[in-house]
Amino acid sequence: MQEITGGVAAPIGFTAAGIHCGVKNKNPEKKDVALIYSEVPCAAAAVYTKNRVKAAPIWVTMENLSDGKAQAVICNSGNANACAPGGTENAKTMCKAAARTLNIPESDVVVASTGVIGQPLNIGVIEAGIPALVSALSKDGSDAAARAIMTTDLMKKEIAVRFNLDGKTVTMGGIAKGSGMIHPNMGTMLCFITTDAAVEPVYLRKLLLAAAERTFNRVSVDGDTSTNDMCAVLTNGLAGNTVIAAEGKDSEAFLDALVHVCRYLARCMAEDGEGATHLVTAKVGGASDNETAAALSMAVVSSSLVKAAMFGADANWGRVLCAMGYSGADFRPEATDVYFRSKSGEILVCSAGTGISFDEAEAKRILSEKEIIIDIRLSEGGGTGEAWGCDLTYDYVRINGDYRT
Amino acid sequence: MQEITGGVAAPIGFTAAGIHCGVKNKNPEKKDVALIYSEVPCAAAAVYTKNRVKAAPIWVTMENLSDGKAQAVICNSGNANACAPGGTENAKTMCKAAARTLNIPESDVVVASTGVIGQPLNIGVIEAGIPALVSALSKDGSDAAARAIMTTDLMKKEIAVRFNLDGKTVTMGGIAKGSGMIHPNMGTMLCFITTDAAVEPVYLRKLLLAAAERTFNRVSVDGDTSTNDMCAVLTNGLAGNTVIAAEGKDSEAFLDALVHVCRYLARCMAEDGEGATHLVTAKVGGASDNETAAALSMAVVSSSLVKAAMFGADANWGRVLCAMGYSGADFRPEATDVYFRSKSGEILVCSAGTGISFDEAEAKRILSEKEIIIDIRLSEGGGTGEAWGCDLTYDYVRINGDYRT
Repeated sequence: MQEITGGVAAPIGFTAAGIHCGVKNKNPEKKDVALIYSEVPCAAAAVYTKNRVKAAPIWVTMENLSDGKAQAVICNSGNANACAPGGTENAKTMCKAAARTLNIPESDVVVASTGVIGQPLNIGVIEAGIPALVSALSKDGSDAAARAIMTTDLMKKEIAVRFNLDGKTVTMGGIAKGSGMIHPNMGTMLCFITTDAAVEPVYLRKLLLAAAERTFNRVSVDGDTSTNDMCAVLTNGLAGNTVIAAEGKDSEAFLDALVHVCRYLARCMAEDGEGATHLVTAKVGGASDNETAAALSMAVVSSSLVKAAMFGADANWGRVLCAMGYSGADFRPEATDVYFRSKSGEILVCSAGTGISFDEAEAKRILSEKEIIIDIRLSEGGGTGEAWGCDLTYDYVRINGDYRT
Repeated sequence: MQEITGGVAAPIGFTAAGIHCGVKNKNPEKKDVALIYSEVPCAAAAVYTKNRVKAAPIWVTMENLSDGKAQAVICNSGNANACAPGGTENAKTMCKAAARTLNIPESDVVVASTGVIGQPLNIGVIEAGIPALVSALSKDGSDAAARAIMTTDLMKKEIAVRFNLDGKTVTMGGIAKGSGMIHPNMGTMLCFITTDAAVEPVYLRKLLLAAAERTFNRVSVDGDTSTNDMCAVLTNGLAGNTVIAAEGKDSEAFLDALVHVCRYLARCMAEDGEGATHLVTAKVGGASDNETAAALSMAVVSSSLVKAAMFGADANWGRVLCAMGYSGADFRPEATDVYFRSKSGEILVCSAGTGISFDEAEAKRILSEKEIIIDIRLSEGGGTGEAWGCDLTYDYVRINGDYRT
């Protein structure tokens, strides 16, 4: 597998675009509507937020994808179209307007929104902008699309990979947005993945769920899960592989690529968490099983106290143990070792569940790097897991103390 | 029921003290060991942290209270004696030293610690300080005891009430510490309650659990639950009431007082949350049942995004609905109204799950008060509940980014 450029427009038959339509009316420089298009219909699948309060575009996309088919994705930023008057109608209008200009069925459009909740979507500017958006579609358009779905994100999240499948060269691309309200089960994240592989849609959803469980569901920025979020995959089959419909060598290769793409985008979300200055990875080894390791690692990256300690480069491992303790997962504190690691080195700070004396200056140096690994070693079995988060900073408070106004 | 002064030393037969022994060695002005004593043995009960990682004093107290009997409480701040070398031995030494000087059985001492995790407790300074601590016991000592258990708390948490029971005048007092790591199931909180009522110890524990469920388990500061925390009640029976051992008029009056004391202390913890500038109460009415209302209100006060919005006096009710949505509790978003209220007024911001236009300046004025109520009205049934939290501020990050060093 090889990383390449081109993002969601890298696979054969896909193009993308992102322009300013006026949803983010405060800043005409900012792109606010993205479009991804396949020249042929795709088998498609998505996973959605588990929040009981779901934004209108989520419901509309669920309906549109119920036949496992899609050909385009339209997404605006700046307004979540959640708990907003006329939400469903506006989401449908976005599909209709895109479909009409692209000359495809309205039900083959995936629609998504992200931004502030509860305010009416300015659907007029989106409708008016669609002809320009469709005209802008190109093989170079992924960058613009990736930027058009950003809210408080500081960096664009985009990747593409090339790999072999069934003797064919297959390409997969992805873009995502994250930032705040990131937590398992699709907390404010949007992710759109395209590929020219051929996959049967019901099986595709199964593979997507497996990939999300190991990647997006292991990211926490602030413990809040959002109303809007989804990860959708469109597979147009133009690479010419035999359709993947069951477990086997091909599905494994496809899943590997999907996990690679999702893992990269998930880590980007953690790294670009609102206000974040550190990417924090919690790794757990020696757990009784992988599920336990996942629960423990998620509790550690989700703890406000661990996150604040990481901000302060403070080797406060007691908070790591404490978070593991309330995770609900089974482990023996008295058989737990904790290391902090970064490119500056590694230091053991807790052995057999008890504090040991260590060089505080060295720990501080290690924790001052941008990327920190909290490495937790248990003695229960062979279960491993990792989760990604970020530190809790003054900027997180600043951004979220006045996001709407 | 009438609020009086005197705290834990208000009930007949109780005295208290708090002095500086040297655990908080950085600041000799700060009291760091508290003692509460009853001149006669008490029926006693406690509830403890559910964190799997429990500090040594928790285990020792559990053992000491297994007979439902206690006569003194000793507690230090500045060091949690959790995940620390020699923890159990040191916790037992605290009991032994206090018991010896008080001339009571070692197993009748409740021991607690709070502070940093993972560092050896300086038991020597506590042992050396105990004679002075016992000498300091007095009817005026509750204030000093309440101060001696504070860590990052800014205000002392103390209350006493007087009420009638079985024709007798009964007094109940309580002190508590809170601040960070506050979340249901006894997240870093310590609470000691004394009363001269007579209650059978097994039934006392049942009443304490019921009171905690409605008070301490409805407070969230940061979602972290700690290794150390407990709420213990000592009842010495000197008021002369008939021993309460089953449901009835007396148990109701006693539970009312206990809830009053616990509720006051729980609210103080939220108000004094680390870095907090607002006390935020989420009230839910019209839920299908009380359990649902409790889960919804807890999700709202626990949300980092709601908390950051409250810091910014931002009427971002979308985050309130969003938090309700991921609470796991059952409700219909489309039948949800949200009001913000404070002593400056009340404003409806979301009607039937949808944003309505409202006066932003008025909302800002309402949310700028120190005490904010988020009033959520559902249409499912008669379930009600409330939970207390605080805003997420720059100071929370500052305090926890560098607590240990």
